[in-house]
Amino acid sequence: MERVCFILQVKPDRLAEYRERHRSVWPDMLAALAETGWHNYSLFLRDDGLLIGYFETPNYAAALAGMATREVNERWQREMAPFFADLEGRRPDEGFLRLEEIFHLA
Amino acid sequence: MERVCFILQVKPDRLAEYRERHRSVWPDMLAALAETGWHNYSLFLRDDGLLIGYFETPNYAAALAGMATREVNERWQREMAPFFADLEGRRPDEGFLRLEEIFHLA
Repeated sequence: MERVCFILQVKPDRLAEYRERHRSVWPDMLAALAETGWHNYSLFLRDDGLLIGYFETPNYAAALAGMATREVNERWQREMAPFFADLEGRRPDEGFLRLEEIFHLA
Repeated sequence: MERVCFILQVKPDRLAEYRERHRSVWPDMLAALAETGWHNYSLFLRDDGLLIGYFETPNYAAALAGMATREVNERWQREMAPFFADLEGRRPDEGFLRLEEIFHLA
């Protein structure tokens, strides 16, 4: 499994709504993530909007490419895009920055 | 298991050395982490020094308290402290900010 950590920036005035939306992610979005290899996937939010994602996947490139072909992902990302700062026209799943893993203890 | 995400800030001019130190963490430090419930523990580093930690534990308070009693942790944290910004005299394991989990998909 590859362990993936990425960050995004949620607009500070949209935090409450962003949090609320993630209490009830669409079932077909959850199914698409599981089917395309997004496992043990968590999102963590800091008060100022720093959003940290963590997931495990057999293949990072395949996980991204797999979701990119799903219609439900396009709908979800379109609804999420206005919550984010600094995307410059990209979808959230195209705009995130992956961080380098420098340590791991099983 | 509780999933824990925390952040710290490494001094930008110490990144290379910090990365290097984490390629060879002391075996007794790794053993102490495992024994006190730090599982699937990763550190991720952004170019500007933003450090993100992720681990899973049966009990977050017990994991922190357990490491706080270990002599090896005191030595390790003392050696790591100069790498961090904004600790204001605290040890790195006392200075980190835990982030709120807002989403999880198994």
